[in-house]
Amino acid sequence: MPETVEIGLGREARRGYHLDEVALVPSRRTRGSSVVSTAWQIDAHTFELPLVAAPSDAVVSPGSAAEIERLGGLAVLNGEGLWARYEDPTEVLARIADPAGCTTAALQQIYAQPVSPELLGRRTAELQAAGVRVAVRLSPQKTVALSPEVLKAGVDLLVIQGTVISAEHVASEHAADDALNLKTFIADLDIPVIVGGVTNYQTALHLMRTGAAGVIVGYGAHSGSTTHSALGIDVPMATAIADAAAARRAYLDETGGRYVHLIAYGDITTGGDVAKALVCGADAVMLGEALAGASGAPGGGRYWDPTASHPRVPRSALIDLGLEPEDRPSLEEVLTGPTADPSGERNLFGSLRRVMAKCGYSSVKEFQKAELIVTGLR
Amino acid sequence: MPETVEIGLGREARRGYHLDEVALVPSRRTRGSSVVSTAWQIDAHTFELPLVAAPSDAVVSPGSAAEIERLGGLAVLNGEGLWARYEDPTEVLARIADPAGCTTAALQQIYAQPVSPELLGRRTAELQAAGVRVAVRLSPQKTVALSPEVLKAGVDLLVIQGTVISAEHVASEHAADDALNLKTFIADLDIPVIVGGVTNYQTALHLMRTGAAGVIVGYGAHSGSTTHSALGIDVPMATAIADAAAARRAYLDETGGRYVHLIAYGDITTGGDVAKALVCGADAVMLGEALAGASGAPGGGRYWDPTASHPRVPRSALIDLGLEPEDRPSLEEVLTGPTADPSGERNLFGSLRRVMAKCGYSSVKEFQKAELIVTGLR
Amino acid sequence: MPETVEIGLGREARRGYHLDEVALVPSRRTRGSSVVSTAWQIDAHTFELPLVAAPSDAVVSPGSAAEIERLGGLAVLNGEGLWARYEDPTEVLARIADPAGCTTAALQQIYAQPVSPELLGRRTAELQAAGVRVAVRLSPQKTVALSPEVLKAGVDLLVIQGTVISAEHVASEHAADDALNLKTFIADLDIPVIVGGVTNYQTALHLMRTGAAGVIVGYGAHSGSTTHSALGIDVPMATAIADAAAARRAYLDETGGRYVHLIAYGDITTGGDVAKALVCGADAVMLGEALAGASGAPGGGRYWDPTASHPRVPRSALIDLGLEPEDRPSLEEVLTGPTADPSGERNLFGSLRRVMAKCGYSSVKEFQKAELIVTGLR
Amino acid sequence: MPETVEIGLGREARRGYHLDEVALVPSRRTRGSSVVSTAWQIDAHTFELPLVAAPSDAVVSPGSAAEIERLGGLAVLNGEGLWARYEDPTEVLARIADPAGCTTAALQQIYAQPVSPELLGRRTAELQAAGVRVAVRLSPQKTVALSPEVLKAGVDLLVIQGTVISAEHVASEHAADDALNLKTFIADLDIPVIVGGVTNYQTALHLMRTGAAGVIVGYGAHSGSTTHSALGIDVPMATAIADAAAARRAYLDETGGRYVHLIAYGDITTGGDVAKALVCGADAVMLGEALAGASGAPGGGRYWDPTASHPRVPRSALIDLGLEPEDRPSLEEVLTGPTADPSGERNLFGSLRRVMAKCGYSSVKEFQKAELIVTGLR
Repeated sequence: MPETVEIGLGREARRGYHLDEVALVPSRRTRGSSVVSTAWQIDAHTFELPLVAAPSDAVVSPGSAAEIERLGGLAVLNGEGLWARYEDPTEVLARIADPAGCTTAALQQIYAQPVSPELLGRRTAELQAAGVRVAVRLSPQKTVALSPEVLKAGVDLLVIQGTVISAEHVASEHAADDALNLKTFIADLDIPVIVGGVTNYQTALHLMRTGAAGVIVGYGAHSGSTTHSALGIDVPMATAIADAAAARRAYLDETGGRYVHLIAYGDITTGGDVAKALVCGADAVMLGEALAGASGAPGGGRYWDPTASHPRVPRSALIDLGLEPEDRPSLEEVLTGPTADPSGERNLFGSLRRVMAKCGYSSVKEFQKAELIVTGLR
Repeated sequence: MPETVEIGLGREARRGYHLDEVALVPSRRTRGSSVVSTAWQIDAHTFELPLVAAPSDAVVSPGSAAEIERLGGLAVLNGEGLWARYEDPTEVLARIADPAGCTTAALQQIYAQPVSPELLGRRTAELQAAGVRVAVRLSPQKTVALSPEVLKAGVDLLVIQGTVISAEHVASEHAADDALNLKTFIADLDIPVIVGGVTNYQTALHLMRTGAAGVIVGYGAHSGSTTHSALGIDVPMATAIADAAAARRAYLDETGGRYVHLIAYGDITTGGDVAKALVCGADAVMLGEALAGASGAPGGGRYWDPTASHPRVPRSALIDLGLEPEDRPSLEEVLTGPTADPSGERNLFGSLRRVMAKCGYSSVKEFQKAELIVTGLR
Repeated sequence: MPETVEIGLGREARRGYHLDEVALVPSRRTRGSSVVSTAWQIDAHTFELPLVAAPSDAVVSPGSAAEIERLGGLAVLNGEGLWARYEDPTEVLARIADPAGCTTAALQQIYAQPVSPELLGRRTAELQAAGVRVAVRLSPQKTVALSPEVLKAGVDLLVIQGTVISAEHVASEHAADDALNLKTFIADLDIPVIVGGVTNYQTALHLMRTGAAGVIVGYGAHSGSTTHSALGIDVPMATAIADAAAARRAYLDETGGRYVHLIAYGDITTGGDVAKALVCGADAVMLGEALAGASGAPGGGRYWDPTASHPRVPRSALIDLGLEPEDRPSLEEVLTGPTADPSGERNLFGSLRRVMAKCGYSSVKEFQKAELIVTGLR
Repeated sequence: MPETVEIGLGREARRGYHLDEVALVPSRRTRGSSVVSTAWQIDAHTFELPLVAAPSDAVVSPGSAAEIERLGGLAVLNGEGLWARYEDPTEVLARIADPAGCTTAALQQIYAQPVSPELLGRRTAELQAAGVRVAVRLSPQKTVALSPEVLKAGVDLLVIQGTVISAEHVASEHAADDALNLKTFIADLDIPVIVGGVTNYQTALHLMRTGAAGVIVGYGAHSGSTTHSALGIDVPMATAIADAAAARRAYLDETGGRYVHLIAYGDITTGGDVAKALVCGADAVMLGEALAGASGAPGGGRYWDPTASHPRVPRSALIDLGLEPEDRPSLEEVLTGPTADPSGERNLFGSLRRVMAKCGYSSVKEFQKAELIVTGLR
């Protein structure tokens, strides 16, 4: 039974744990780093790193997608981002990165430019042509409208992602005909679909039943997120991942063996966070802010996610990561090192390999069995 | 059973939860924002927003009351505030808002001016004449003396409110004759009465039995409150609201259906706080500090509540909200947006509508069933 | 059973609560402030306030003792402080208060001056002659040597106090003959003795059995205390007071009615802290730092306690309270008000009277029954 | 049973406690400091203080080792540190201590110089010749290669220490022949071996079974540690020590009386931390950062441990302790006082003696029975 408290008479609530409330406890034989594998395979695709780069215009551009693939990860282009709104986003990216600062109001204006399905199709085709595996993210609201172009252009994985998603959405009555039925939509496709985010067992299980190959846990909380203050929604990621892993086990059982991948998204900025997310039950992590400071990221030292430009209720700030251009590490230093930065924010997957070794596990799937401890905050 | 701990041998205490210790967990189908209603109805009065503007002179003046009504909320004029003490409060409001600063001592002096029942009656009548629904707040100590003028002038709702109130107050022996008997007082009126604040189940139930239409939970803790340090009283609002909701259920049962509204007052400054207060069981929220920074609020960028000017034991500071005049949002931006501020402190009810949709509820009453989680602090 | 956790396999520890982890919950009828009494009676002595001024040279001098008596409290002169070491402490007090700062090393040097029993006797007699009730504090180590002069000069209450005290001290073998046997010592006296500090049930009970009229709970933790870092000892005062109150009940029972007073000493700086200490079970509070900022206190805007000048292991810092001379309140403002300071640090006992009224209690003894809640920190 | 929580459905985790979450509770008769002994005996070696100076080049040089021995402790030279890499480390130590700052990158470069077994042997012999008891630390990876020279030169204790160690390490297949078999290695030696660090019961018990004389608990977390963020590993020391003490009891039982010493290493910077580590079950403490600020320490006002110079994943920062040369205390002031610094960071073992007296214990072994309380953080 989950841990519940009674916050008031007759009103119960579970206690949820953030990743920074848990830590790993090495408790068996150790292992050499060189006998550890961090590989991740989803559907027919294998990656050296259990990494999905988040569909933020600050992180994934056609250029950075190729570099992330080279380093072993999967990059997801935001199908409703700047590359689908502007023929050449260079100028608006420069405005956002302007050292004099860019406001949320300016961001709202920049993203007021409509999405062009034709442009989105073209981007997809260009990536395909460049030999990079292509993953594109669409919001549930626009999937019906935008997916045909993307599919036609050739996409390897489709990511259907909102802050919070459900298997059955109740739209307004007039819009009902356009509403996305995930189950039939996915059944009709012959490419793997990743859906999310989810925050609890029930929704995770329902989304697994739509036929998704992967489910994203969390909405990508980062240091500039205000979803907890604007909406009152907060996702204690250790708990959310563990709950979704329980849903994965239940679904494995009810299907006699269909394994749905969990991708943890939120509150992951260090190698230690990556390790803890995997030990809680994730198969891979989706990283946004953690990659945005790299010189190879298109954000120019800033990070923002799709909620930052919402026209009425923006739910995260545009963050300045505080790095001078000459201090920005390469994507390679951030992902696989080596590094001379002891903060834990670089060589994320070199760190992962090392902690897997210290805990005595040789694959990510085995590493999910490592021991956790709940600690007071440092 | 509520969660109790033994703080010392033979001494038990419950664990109470602040709103910032809980968060919402979307856990069912989602819903479009357009099919969500935030309406609130108490007695014969319907409001678009479940909002009561607090009886602070920094928030409610005859002018701002009209604007708050227009935007869908209910404003409560402090019947013992500046508008009942000064023929024209403009000058004293300017002194309080003086950029050079205003001290608690000056505030005490300003509020040393006696309340004029005649003036109070006149304010009430003016609002009535302007077509604004009129709610006036009186302290329990002065209700007997001041209510006749207010009632005569025509008031729509009467709010009887102290920091802490009880159904049965023991006054000094000499003053006993003037003591307010809430039960007979309310029974004699033909307008709805809202009373408070309460902090626990028992007092909430007793106040419901006085015939009140609504009960205020909490004493309006805000960023300048010092009640917890001056008096040792602190109200963990998530717990207090949930307890009062249990009292509401008990009273519903014992009366065979009389529904008393709960108005949460304290520690509510963001859209997320509004949502969490409602999910804990409130029917509406009373907002003070959250509205005081608006250009339409009379406080001129400062906030103070009635305890700030107490002549002997002031229990909150006069706060400067830190906004330059040109940066103050309109009351409309604060209440219903849109906004370009991602802090969660603006478009409070647009945020509410959105989170209700993400949690899959279409009315405030249903939204009280949403799932809560207790989280470590961010 | 107290709440225990297992910090490691086979190693249990209780959870203790600091005063700032608990709060009061008004939960019954309210009461007018004017029908509340804060009086305290110990042995034949009655005080308007349940206040003992701590034996710190920063707080109690012959002059401030008279003022504290006038305001309703009991002041304790440190029998091993400056007034017993220097014919005229004016100059050394000025050095400590020097705006250029005074170091712990200088404090150690100032207190290296030996205590003069003759001088101590003289101070006692002078206070006696001035009509002020005289209480003198001696350390357990020096009680045998110094008490004769104090008793001869005429003392009303004797306070035997160390950081931690026990009913049975094991001295070095050579010193054994001089060791204080509290039980026989107290039995031989005809004035009330207050002893402390204690931190737990067992020691409190043992000290009660020595015949003490009062027991001090805690060692006076204040904002400059480093006992928790230097010694690893920390006293969660809510728990310590409640435990000592349980010892008081046990001792009442075993003696068929002898009531020993509990004086809470530590972490009490606001009116709310005073109230919470009493509700946890104390009969009075001992205040040091809370009074030191007053213009009438001899410390000149600084606070230090006897542990600050320890020659080898100083266990608290000499604190500058940060008040310009013109901003220092009078002792009267600090104790009984009125005040224009909303911090809760002034009008401590006016605040107490008010919260007793709001909680519906008319005497301190009854107030010990008020309801407590454990809250997350603000 | 240890305290466990369910962080997610089907996923349990223990609650672990840091040293700063616990405190000592004096609860019996007190005792004079002069009748207290802090002595520690391991194998044939007796020390006045239960102190092991950590094998950090910032703390232990041949010179400081002699001074630490004189003051009553045991110093451990890092067998893979600067003294084994440079004929004369003076110049590189000066570069690290350069007031203009030294980077992690520079540290990585300095430590890229290979270890010379011959030089290491020479250092060992020199210390031996100077009459200082010699303890040398080797990493598990290099013990096979480096121990012959050290043993030949004459070492009193051998310390085999990595961040995390296990009794059975799985190296890469090719390296298998060189892998250290701790059990046979220790059995072949006729000097005591100390191994670590461990973080839990099981590993502690396994290491005890290798025949080690002492086991180090923890990896030396200090204010610059980033192991928790880089690797996700964090060791709540109160819990880890208590668990290892349970392993010691189990091993005592299974061997019919073989007592393995526990040396606590991490989060210990004050006298209070020393006391708490011992009460949790340690026999001695290993101190690094706590000693590095002393004028007698070779680090020149900085602290770094072996993980700070890791070539790919540095896991702690090079810390500037912020002390001007003239403000640095002597090692004697830090260890045995007296001091005029009230922070608790000096006279660490004078503080220990004092708290043992206040808690009424006369030896470290007895002191392990003292009472602990879990408190909210200050």
